[in-house]
Amino acid sequence: MGDNFVTEEEREEDAYVLDKGTVQAILGAVQTGDSDGLTLLMEPLHAADIADLLEQISRPDRRDLVQLYDREFDGEILSELDEGLRKEVIDALHPQVLADAVRDLESDDVVDLLEDMNVPQQVALLDVLEDVDRVAVEQALTYPEYSAGRLMQREVVMAPEHWNVGQAIDFLRKSAVLPEQFYHLHLVNPKMEPVSYVTLGRLLSSKRGCPLVDITEDSFRTFDATEDEADVAYAFNQYHLISAPVVDENQRLVGMITIDDAVQVLDEEHEEDILRLAGVGESSLSDKVIDTTKRRFPWLAVNLVTSILASLVIAQFEELITQFVALAVLMPIVASMGGNAGTQSLTVAVRAIATRDLTGANVWRVMRREVLVGLVNGMVFAVVMGGVGAIWFGTPVLGVVIGLAMLVNLVIAGLAGILVPVTLEKIGIDPALASGAFVTTVTDVVGFFAFLGLAAMMLL
Amino acid sequence: MGDNFVTEEEREEDAYVLDKGTVQAILGAVQTGDSDGLTLLMEPLHAADIADLLEQISRPDRRDLVQLYDREFDGEILSELDEGLRKEVIDALHPQVLADAVRDLESDDVVDLLEDMNVPQQVALLDVLEDVDRVAVEQALTYPEYSAGRLMQREVVMAPEHWNVGQAIDFLRKSAVLPEQFYHLHLVNPKMEPVSYVTLGRLLSSKRGCPLVDITEDSFRTFDATEDEADVAYAFNQYHLISAPVVDENQRLVGMITIDDAVQVLDEEHEEDILRLAGVGESSLSDKVIDTTKRRFPWLAVNLVTSILASLVIAQFEELITQFVALAVLMPIVASMGGNAGTQSLTVAVRAIATRDLTGANVWRVMRREVLVGLVNGMVFAVVMGGVGAIWFGTPVLGVVIGLAMLVNLVIAGLAGILVPVTLEKIGIDPALASGAFVTTVTDVVGFFAFLGLAAMMLL
Repeated sequence: MGDNFVTEEEREEDAYVLDKGTVQAILGAVQTGDSDGLTLLMEPLHAADIADLLEQISRPDRRDLVQLYDREFDGEILSELDEGLRKEVIDALHPQVLADAVRDLESDDVVDLLEDMNVPQQVALLDVLEDVDRVAVEQALTYPEYSAGRLMQREVVMAPEHWNVGQAIDFLRKSAVLPEQFYHLHLVNPKMEPVSYVTLGRLLSSKRGCPLVDITEDSFRTFDATEDEADVAYAFNQYHLISAPVVDENQRLVGMITIDDAVQVLDEEHEEDILRLAGVGESSLSDKVIDTTKRRFPWLAVNLVTSILASLVIAQFEELITQFVALAVLMPIVASMGGNAGTQSLTVAVRAIATRDLTGANVWRVMRREVLVGLVNGMVFAVVMGGVGAIWFGTPVLGVVIGLAMLVNLVIAGLAGILVPVTLEKIGIDPALASGAFVTTVTDVVGFFAFLGLAAMMLL
Repeated sequence: MGDNFVTEEEREEDAYVLDKGTVQAILGAVQTGDSDGLTLLMEPLHAADIADLLEQISRPDRRDLVQLYDREFDGEILSELDEGLRKEVIDALHPQVLADAVRDLESDDVVDLLEDMNVPQQVALLDVLEDVDRVAVEQALTYPEYSAGRLMQREVVMAPEHWNVGQAIDFLRKSAVLPEQFYHLHLVNPKMEPVSYVTLGRLLSSKRGCPLVDITEDSFRTFDATEDEADVAYAFNQYHLISAPVVDENQRLVGMITIDDAVQVLDEEHEEDILRLAGVGESSLSDKVIDTTKRRFPWLAVNLVTSILASLVIAQFEELITQFVALAVLMPIVASMGGNAGTQSLTVAVRAIATRDLTGANVWRVMRREVLVGLVNGMVFAVVMGGVGAIWFGTPVLGVVIGLAMLVNLVIAGLAGILVPVTLEKIGIDPALASGAFVTTVTDVVGFFAFLGLAAMMLL
C-alpha cells in the first residue's frame, strides 16, 4: 500500500502478503535447511498467513518446514490452522516446542486445539499447562461441543455494579493480569450475575464520580453456556456485539465471548452452508484424496438413485421415443431448466432460513412469489423453446409440447424450491444438506413426465 | 434465556425475539391504529429486529406500520433495513421524521443510506444534516462505491505518537465529543500519518508516565481509502482486527473502519457467493416478482443455450437411439452424475478462491486431487451403474458402456470443476457467477457424447 502507481492486479497481490515469490523463497530455505533464512522470511508473516502457507504446500514440505522452524513455532499458528491439518502438524512438532507454543494461548484457543487431539496428546498438553489454566480448560470441556461454553474465554474483566468510574479505573490500573484484549467492563451484582456493561471509551471519557450504572450500554445481552455457538454468532451479527458475558445455569458469570470468536463461527457456518448446498461435507483443500472421495460419495449416491428414478419415468415412454426420437433429443432441456430454476429458489430459501429472514410470517407470500416468478419465466421460455423446438424438427405440435412442459416444470420448481427446504427445516433436517437432492428429483421426474406425457397425448 | 425447563424448540424460538406471537400482536396494533400499543410492543425490539419485521410483513402492512410508528422511527432501522426496501420506507416516512432519524447516525451509515436514494431525496437529506456532518458525508461520496473510503467513519480518536499514557488519558477525559464506540487510540506522526495504535485496555492498565509507543499493538495495519471493501473485510477476518485507520493517497489519516462494518461486508460477500453459485443475482425475499424474475432470467437463458448444445450432441445419435431406446432412458443418468460431481468440485474451488486458500502454490496439487477423487468415485459408480444397466436391459455391453461413460464424465467433472473457476478468476470474471454454466455444459456434452459415442462403437 502507499504506492499509487501499481496496477489493479499488483494491488490485489499486495492485499495478500503470501505472494508466489515469498512462498518460493520460504520453500527454498526449507529445502536447503537454512534455518536463519527461514526465520527471517517468516518474521513479517502473521500467524494466520503462516497457517495458510502450511495449508498450501505439500505434506513433505510441511513437515520439513515445521521441523526447521522449530522453536519459533507459535501457538497461534496452530489456532489458525485448518482443523484437518492440526493433528499432522502437532505430530511433527517437538513436544517441548508444542508445550511452549500452547502455554501462551487463551483458554478458549487451547480448548479448540484439544478438541482435535487424541487422548495421549490431550494428556500431554494438559500436563504442560499451569494449574489455573488447566482447570479453566478442563471446565470448558465439560460443556457440549459447539456450545457457548466451549467458545468463551474464562478471563473476564468485571466490577461490582455499585462502583463509580474512579473506582473502576483505579481497579484496572492496579490489576496485575488483564486479558490481552478487552473492550468492556462487565458489571455484576452480588450474586455474580452480569447485569450490564460499560465500554472502555465511555469509562475513559466520564467523570470519576459518575456511577457506572449511568454509562452502561443498551446492547447488553447474555448467553447461556450451553447455547449453540451458531445462535451466539447470529446474535453477535444481528446486534453488532463486541463482547458478551456467558452465564451458567444459575445465571452466574462464567466467561465472555468476543467478536473475533463469533466471526470465526459465522465464517464456518457460511462455509458449511455453501458446501452443503453443493453436496460436499465439511472439507478443506488439504484433505487427503480418500477422505474427500468418501465425503463426496453419499451425495453422488443419492443423486444416482434420484436419476434412476427419473429414468424409470422415461422408461414408461420407450415406445413413444422409438416413434419420435426428437423427444429423446429435447427431453433433457426441460429437466435441466427445471433443475436450474429449482436450485435458484431453494438457494434463496436455504439462505433466508439461515439468516432467519424466512419465517412463518412470510412463508406463504414468498411461496406465492416463487410460483409467480416460475410462471413468468416459464411463459417466456415456453415461447422461446416452443419456437426453437417447432422449427428444429418442423413439427409445430412438438413446440407446443415442450413449451407447456417447460411452463409446468418451472412453476413446480419454484414451489418445490421453497416447500422442500421449509419442510426439511420443520422436521429438523438441515435444509442446506438435503434440499438439492429432493428438489432436483422433483424437477427431473416432473420434467420428463410432463414432456413425455404431453407428447403421448398430443402426438399420438 | 435462563429458564432451564424449555424444550430445544422453545429455546430456538427464544434465541430470536421475533416470534410469531409478537409479529401477530404488532400487526394487530397496526390494523386497529393503536399507536401506544405499537410503541409498547416495539420498545423491547432492537433496530435490527424491527428491520427484519418490516422485511417479513406485506407491503401495505409495512406502510401502515411505518406511518403509525411515526416519530418513534429510529435512523438505525433504516441502516439495518434491506437495501431493496429502503426507498419504499423512506417514501412512507414523514420528511421531518426522516430528518430526525438520520441526524443521529454516524457518517458511514448516512453514506450507506444516501447510496440508495434518488437525487431529490439525497438533497433533502443532506439539507437536514449539520454543516460538519454534511461535509463529512459529501467527502465520503467522492470515494468509489464499495471502497474503504465509503465504509469508513470520519470520527477517529487519535493522539500524537510522542505522548505518554497520562497525556492521552487527560486528552480523552477532556474531549467533548467522542464517537459512540471506539476501542483504540490511533497514534499519528506530525504529518498526520497513522503509525500505530494502542488498545484502551492497555492504556487503562499502564502507568501514566509510560510512552504510548511502548504499549502499541502488533496487529496494526492501514487501508487505502480507494481499496476494495472486500479486501478490507478479508484482512479484518484474517488478522482479527477490531479497528483500523484509513489513509488518503498521501498516507494521511482520513478515517477509521471498525469490525462491525467489516463483518457486514463479509456477510454480504458470503451472501453474494452463495447466491451467484446458484445463478441468482443479489436479491432479497422482499423484492417484487418482476425484479426477481428479471434477475433469475439471465442464468436460465444461459442454461437454455447450454442445454440446447447438449441436445445437439444427442441429435447426432438419433438413429442409434431409435435402434436402442434404452440409451434414451439411461443417458440422463450419466449427465446428471457428471453435473453433480462438477458442482462439488467447482463449489470447493470457488470457495477456496474467495478465502484465498487456492493459489498458484497449490493449484496443481488440488487439480490432481480432484481428478483422483473423480477417478475413484467414477470407478465405484461405474461398477454400480454398469451392473444396474446390464441387469435392467439384459444387455451386458450396455452396462460396460454406461460404466465407462460414467468414469470418463466424473474425471472430466473434477478437472473442469477446478480449471473453469481458476481460469475465470485469472481473466477477471467472478468465478462464483459463471463457473456453474461452463462446468455443467462440459459435463452434459461430455456425458452424452461419451455415453452415446461408446454405445455407437460397442453396440453397432
